[in-house]
Amino acid sequence: MQAEIIAVGSELLTPDRIDTNSLFLTQRLNHLGIAVARKTLVGDQHDHVRDAFRSALDRCDLVVASGGLGPTLDDLTREAVAELLGRKLVLNSSVLQNIEARFRRLGRSMPEVNKRQAMVPEGAELLENPRGTAPGLWLESAGRIVVLLPGPPHELKAMFTEKVEPRLEPMAGATRLFYREMRTAGLTESEVEQRTAPIYTQYPDVQTTILAAPGEIQLHLRAWSSNHPAAERMLDEMIERIGFALGENVFTSNGQTLEEIVAREMAINQATVATAESCTGGLLAERLTRVPGSSSYFRGGVVCYSNDLKTAWTDVPAELIESKGAVSPEVAQALAQGIRRRIGATLGIGITGIAGPSGGSPEKPIGLVYIALADANGSRDRALRFPGDRERIRWHASQAALDMLRRYFIYARHGKPSWPTVVQS
Amino acid sequence: MQAEIIAVGSELLTPDRIDTNSLFLTQRLNHLGIAVARKTLVGDQHDHVRDAFRSALDRCDLVVASGGLGPTLDDLTREAVAELLGRKLVLNSSVLQNIEARFRRLGRSMPEVNKRQAMVPEGAELLENPRGTAPGLWLESAGRIVVLLPGPPHELKAMFTEKVEPRLEPMAGATRLFYREMRTAGLTESEVEQRTAPIYTQYPDVQTTILAAPGEIQLHLRAWSSNHPAAERMLDEMIERIGFALGENVFTSNGQTLEEIVAREMAINQATVATAESCTGGLLAERLTRVPGSSSYFRGGVVCYSNDLKTAWTDVPAELIESKGAVSPEVAQALAQGIRRRIGATLGIGITGIAGPSGGSPEKPIGLVYIALADANGSRDRALRFPGDRERIRWHASQAALDMLRRYFIYARHGKPSWPTVVQS
Repeated sequence: MQAEIIAVGSELLTPDRIDTNSLFLTQRLNHLGIAVARKTLVGDQHDHVRDAFRSALDRCDLVVASGGLGPTLDDLTREAVAELLGRKLVLNSSVLQNIEARFRRLGRSMPEVNKRQAMVPEGAELLENPRGTAPGLWLESAGRIVVLLPGPPHELKAMFTEKVEPRLEPMAGATRLFYREMRTAGLTESEVEQRTAPIYTQYPDVQTTILAAPGEIQLHLRAWSSNHPAAERMLDEMIERIGFALGENVFTSNGQTLEEIVAREMAINQATVATAESCTGGLLAERLTRVPGSSSYFRGGVVCYSNDLKTAWTDVPAELIESKGAVSPEVAQALAQGIRRRIGATLGIGITGIAGPSGGSPEKPIGLVYIALADANGSRDRALRFPGDRERIRWHASQAALDMLRRYFIYARHGKPSWPTVVQS
Repeated sequence: MQAEIIAVGSELLTPDRIDTNSLFLTQRLNHLGIAVARKTLVGDQHDHVRDAFRSALDRCDLVVASGGLGPTLDDLTREAVAELLGRKLVLNSSVLQNIEARFRRLGRSMPEVNKRQAMVPEGAELLENPRGTAPGLWLESAGRIVVLLPGPPHELKAMFTEKVEPRLEPMAGATRLFYREMRTAGLTESEVEQRTAPIYTQYPDVQTTILAAPGEIQLHLRAWSSNHPAAERMLDEMIERIGFALGENVFTSNGQTLEEIVAREMAINQATVATAESCTGGLLAERLTRVPGSSSYFRGGVVCYSNDLKTAWTDVPAELIESKGAVSPEVAQALAQGIRRRIGATLGIGITGIAGPSGGSPEKPIGLVYIALADANGSRDRALRFPGDRERIRWHASQAALDMLRRYFIYARHGKPSWPTVVQS
């Protein structure tokens, strides 16, 4: 079974607004075993809306649409679809009563214009909207289904999950979409591709996508199958084989963030961490504390932009900064050791680098970042060179620091000596 | 002149990827006076791509498409469009040489598959791609224009700005889109609506949109006009009148971020700032240092999650934390004063609150945040109560802190005594 999605609303044809409803709808439809074949975004013009539905119904059996069910004159999805399907619009008194009751509960009387929302095409089934005034509509015509949903995401999501999915489920057939996701840090997109292509090409029934997000590469595996246990087994087998090929570069197969993985390692190992950041300006501390409960392993950190504060807060010798420069492996190590000692944490992280747009030189170009990790036995550093602008360099640096923390525990368990080489993705 | 946008790529029909290229393209097209009438997203199937272009060309004179120009077999925009327009694909040797040279510069030889990218429909004009291998294509057929752009955003943006806009500009006609944007902090969406509706409804030729972003409310004003000076005057007049209605709650009419406005005030007033953050975990420092050159007003800050560190780093008396609680106006003020004194900055900011999901109580619920600002004359605090989850509460708190810095300088100039009341947006 295939579906098309239509999003109605002139605001979706401006530079300000993006259609995110369709991501949710796609995910839920896929889960039911329904693929999305096309998305169309049209403005609030009667003819445009009608034509979009006509074309979609020419091509497929299910059209799911959002928007244009509001009370104002430019909300005309109801009218356009009724015209296309040759249905009359009839005032539905129970819908009208619901809308009036909703306004009464808010202490207001219903504006006359909201009556429009009680106009229902003949033969349509109503989809109740507990979160708003406009009910959704379910129409069947010549074996094809049209579902009209309101545009506000919280109304659309609740209505789709509660009212639409139970109706679609029995129709969707036995073929379902099965899905796995892996996330890696420390490898480039082409390295992931090279290591995994020999494996995933052996599974032609699985659609494998490699996606690059800043500082991480993701693998998405999708299989449509009517043999559910076989599909689950096949994907589990792929995850296992790809896991071997990518080794400790995989940080999750369960959709967790790198912050969450670091949090888990911290808890398991009863470790604590302290941060001393220069070029990342607090981003590493901010990411570490995104995780609820992070106070159990993160007590504090400093952002020492100035050289004075590097010395005052983390005991980096002024002479060291003078002789090696503030952006140097030695200063990164001194930051990590100093903040660790000052806070009394198990681990310390120091970051110093050049985020740009100014401050670069031939020897120390923009994007050069030193990250050091200190424990009770000393410290080590990584020199990294990141591409992109200030924001991207800072993000990459925080990602590399989190990954260094993650690897610290893996290497402690398995004794691997070396850090991954320079990451440029 | 009207355009349609087609985005090609099966990944755009999954729950993972959103089409953001079309926002950029819409903005640039609008700027040239070209409205976007529809957007279509199709997967990597030859027939689907061809049919999408056929329908779009039936409806309008300009089709701008992204994606499907890569080297692999599922990149078939070239083939589909050539077939639709009845053009042969011909190997273009200069394109081939460029691609080979690009690979040589990266120290690799060109994979055979990349030859596909040198296949050009007869009569197409090439749009050079300095950022990637796939050139763009400009085709004209029966008075209609088709522009094919690569999918990667940085390639698409550079190519559109440098190669496409100069060609479109002379065709676009006299009617242009004129645009203004205002951003406010400290007001809810309905407050902005109430204060501005009496004004903007007097300008029926201007499309006014009020958009809520976390911690700020934006007003977008758009007018299509062939009388350019009149349109500019009308929008300037609106901006002025709306500016009076919203007062110091407007922080920019030039598209700047709140961080950038704070940076400007810091520079003008030769002020410096130091931060002591608890619940925001470094987010305020991170946002202050997003601005290039922020080292001139931001020397450093601390993230003191634990009570010990609040005392050790910012001299908050342990008895004060004991008697008032770590989340209290008194501790916020002590954090602000302490970090200001320790760093020797003009201003200090202290933030303490409950970001959740745990730690709330009836007296101090999740979302309660105290923010204090200290200067040489003392300190004052604001009690705020933010809705939403941990991430949203932290963001709102950082936004309120930046806005407090901004207002500090305004109030210093104009003598307004009070802070805005609790912000809940």
